[in-house]
Amino acid sequence: MEFLVHMEVGWPPDGDPVERDRLVAAEAARADELAEAGLVTRLWRVPGRWANYGLWEAPDADALHVAISSLPLFPWIDVDVIPLATHPSDPGARKRTA
Amino acid sequence: MEFLVHMEVGWPPDGDPVERDRLVAAEAARADELAEAGLVTRLWRVPGRWANYGLWEAPDADALHVAISSLPLFPWIDVDVIPLATHPSDPGARKRTA
Amino acid sequence: MEFLVHMEVGWPPDGDPVERDRLVAAEAARADELAEAGLVTRLWRVPGRWANYGLWEAPDADALHVAISSLPLFPWIDVDVIPLATHPSDPGARKRTA
Amino acid sequence: MEFLVHMEVGWPPDGDPVERDRLVAAEAARADELAEAGLVTRLWRVPGRWANYGLWEAPDADALHVAISSLPLFPWIDVDVIPLATHPSDPGARKRTA
Amino acid sequence: MEFLVHMEVGWPPDGDPVERDRLVAAEAARADELAEAGLVTRLWRVPGRWANYGLWEAPDADALHVAISSLPLFPWIDVDVIPLATHPSDPGARKRTA
Amino acid sequence: MEFLVHMEVGWPPDGDPVERDRLVAAEAARADELAEAGLVTRLWRVPGRWANYGLWEAPDADALHVAISSLPLFPWIDVDVIPLATHPSDPGARKRTA
Amino acid sequence: MEFLVHMEVGWPPDGDPVERDRLVAAEAARADELAEAGLVTRLWRVPGRWANYGLWEAPDADALHVAISSLPLFPWIDVDVIPLATHPSDPGARKRTA
Amino acid sequence: MEFLVHMEVGWPPDGDPVERDRLVAAEAARADELAEAGLVTRLWRVPGRWANYGLWEAPDADALHVAISSLPLFPWIDVDVIPLATHPSDPGARKRTA
Amino acid sequence: MEFLVHMEVGWPPDGDPVERDRLVAAEAARADELAEAGLVTRLWRVPGRWANYGLWEAPDADALHVAISSLPLFPWIDVDVIPLATHPSDPGARKRTA
Amino acid sequence: MEFLVHMEVGWPPDGDPVERDRLVAAEAARADELAEAGLVTRLWRVPGRWANYGLWEAPDADALHVAISSLPLFPWIDVDVIPLATHPSDPGARKRTA
Repeated sequence: MEFLVHMEVGWPPDGDPVERDRLVAAEAARADELAEAGLVTRLWRVPGRWANYGLWEAPDADALHVAISSLPLFPWIDVDVIPLATHPSDPGARKRTA
Repeated sequence: MEFLVHMEVGWPPDGDPVERDRLVAAEAARADELAEAGLVTRLWRVPGRWANYGLWEAPDADALHVAISSLPLFPWIDVDVIPLATHPSDPGARKRTA
Repeated sequence: MEFLVHMEVGWPPDGDPVERDRLVAAEAARADELAEAGLVTRLWRVPGRWANYGLWEAPDADALHVAISSLPLFPWIDVDVIPLATHPSDPGARKRTA
Repeated sequence: MEFLVHMEVGWPPDGDPVERDRLVAAEAARADELAEAGLVTRLWRVPGRWANYGLWEAPDADALHVAISSLPLFPWIDVDVIPLATHPSDPGARKRTA
Repeated sequence: MEFLVHMEVGWPPDGDPVERDRLVAAEAARADELAEAGLVTRLWRVPGRWANYGLWEAPDADALHVAISSLPLFPWIDVDVIPLATHPSDPGARKRTA
Repeated sequence: MEFLVHMEVGWPPDGDPVERDRLVAAEAARADELAEAGLVTRLWRVPGRWANYGLWEAPDADALHVAISSLPLFPWIDVDVIPLATHPSDPGARKRTA
Repeated sequence: MEFLVHMEVGWPPDGDPVERDRLVAAEAARADELAEAGLVTRLWRVPGRWANYGLWEAPDADALHVAISSLPLFPWIDVDVIPLATHPSDPGARKRTA
Repeated sequence: MEFLVHMEVGWPPDGDPVERDRLVAAEAARADELAEAGLVTRLWRVPGRWANYGLWEAPDADALHVAISSLPLFPWIDVDVIPLATHPSDPGARKRTA
Repeated sequence: MEFLVHMEVGWPPDGDPVERDRLVAAEAARADELAEAGLVTRLWRVPGRWANYGLWEAPDADALHVAISSLPLFPWIDVDVIPLATHPSDPGARKRTA
Repeated sequence: MEFLVHMEVGWPPDGDPVERDRLVAAEAARADELAEAGLVTRLWRVPGRWANYGLWEAPDADALHVAISSLPLFPWIDVDVIPLATHPSDPGARKRTA
């Protein structure tokens, strides 16, 4: 099942820059692992913000929560999850079955 | 450039069912054309609502507006457009360059 | 997977009372069928409103959408779906495994 | 009487992790006691957030407040309470009288 | 148990004035009955609006819903219910026990 | 003139507990004085929150502001004031004139 | 006591223009009477909208409601009332006592 | 003085298409006149909506209201006006003085 | 041109009381100067809050911004500016021309 | 492609004034560079706030994000981006082609 996930990072502007760099690097590494595992399939940056929209794929909300909460920046991230159903006109679905 | 587009159809519950069926069929046909043209790349239904999230690809907001307003149900649809920037960890971008 | 679903019926105050009674009866019958099928497990009325919260169980958002949109009053209902994950302290889960 | 209760924990991301672990353990223990006492009957995690929806049962709002405010994390929790009325189509009610 | 109830009447400006007068009179009569029965204990008009705040007293949300939905204008009223707990400094409680 | 007043206390979760206890005791004492003076006539706790709804009576907004701002916790309280008009069906008004 | 009152007129765009003109003229005449009686002391148009902010003066919310609801367009107007207290730095108050 | 003005047209989807075409043409003609008169200096379409952002220039809010309300579609348009002050880094201001 | 200005002071509850007193005194002195200069013509306190509504008069948004940002508490104040147009039924305008 | 960008600076009122001055100067210098490069074409101050609306021009959301995030105050700025399409009645477009 697919989920549209919006994330906004609430890192304090005066936070420790070294810790920030360490967390950002760890976040990117973890994101790669989640992508490898097929949990994150697309990721977009919201222009002008430290925020992203992501397309996630997980068997259910439990697996999704485990994946999201494994992100190193998780305690600083405000997350909104929108469950998605398939649409009969989805071009992506058509390609998969082609 | 990619856009995340949310659409909610405001068709009146007591609207003419024949006209509704005609418009829904025309909408699906037009969506297929937009998919063929590469303007719509993914489409998801919001469960429980006559609404969808779509991933659109267009050179700019002008081309996007022309595409969206070509939908037969356009006068009944409330549309929100979110511009998307590429994310360094996007698994989809990685696949394209692979 | 469980979903918390909020429904608010937007039936017009001056709508045809006969049609309303017919739809309400059909809605109750369909709700019973969905309960029998295990799709709706709990249902509460929001006091003072023609609205309810329901606990739904479905394999994914597709099955949920099919179930919700099968309700006779669906065109008049505004639906919000909240995906739920299991909580380690859930007393209900404990009872099931007991 | 049943209440739908939404809780969101506002623990600071840079809060003391030892104190956090202590409070989370105490919270789980207290949740178990409230479940044993029949005050909490179901509990779900909101995926992607340190938040939950709970189904609470209490004679009135006074008893509910005493129960909620007994949680060790209470000073950090934002709580919304929605009173629930019974619904004639509630499958849960049917099972109880069966 | 007490509830704070907010009501806003959505009668259409061009609605039939005769029917409106009939409903308003019936509403006042029903409100008197609910007051007699102890279900409504205070009622205030929101200045500038066809709206009111009321203090209701009912054993639970079921009895409250039955009372509210018995109002003749109910199909036109938007109702919000806030459950109330007793406050240790409530002057009204002090008077009752005096 | 009556006012419906909503108060939400924004005391920090990690605030000094001794100072908190001192302020809460002073708040209760001041609330009693305001009740004695007829400025606060009813007070309810919002279940699950450090918040209350109160029924205040004051000649005008000036007297109301003086009373509210005399509360020891005032700097931490977020206050919303709703002016109330008398309602022709108010059971409380009927009792007073009886 | 002074009140800040916001009014927004919800006249339908396709409403009868003759009836509209009649109501607008009656509204202006009634506004003049309320100004003469000292109930409305200032009135501003919100640019771009059929809406206004007004400064009203009335002994209490009852007198204010009687005045507002006497406006011929009242059934079409959405009204928000904000109670005002005197400010120690108010230049207007200084002029009055001068 | 410059104003940022947001306009959203609320024309009903089932409105008379002939009248709509007539109004749209008249709107474009009036927009040209306002541009000629220097009242509208820029105009952008909001993609996916019958809405626009405009940069208006007028001596004050009175002149702005006269201009906006002269639009043939005015009764159907929801308008929000944001007053603008000059910014020391405005590239447009620099060009004007160049 | 007149502006309706809403101000809410966000001074921290545990802020230095000496600095607070100094700023409040300086604020009152500056408010008097702005009143003398005709920039602030009325000022009201919002009951129960450290907030006010003010009627400001300035040639344009630039002059208004200079005046508002000259307030000593400006860095702590959240300000909303509503531009006002003259209303044909404004009693204040009538008095000025009388 | 043009974008309407709203920025609100969340600099803490008690922040270091020296650092603030340094950042504000650096921000102005960077804004000049972005203007020179044609990325920012207009900039307005929101009166009464540390906020601005800007008209930005960039090939896509990626270039826009790079430009915005290059601002020295970026970590303290809350940014909202609205994509803009050309409007057939835009006076600015007419001038360009003239």
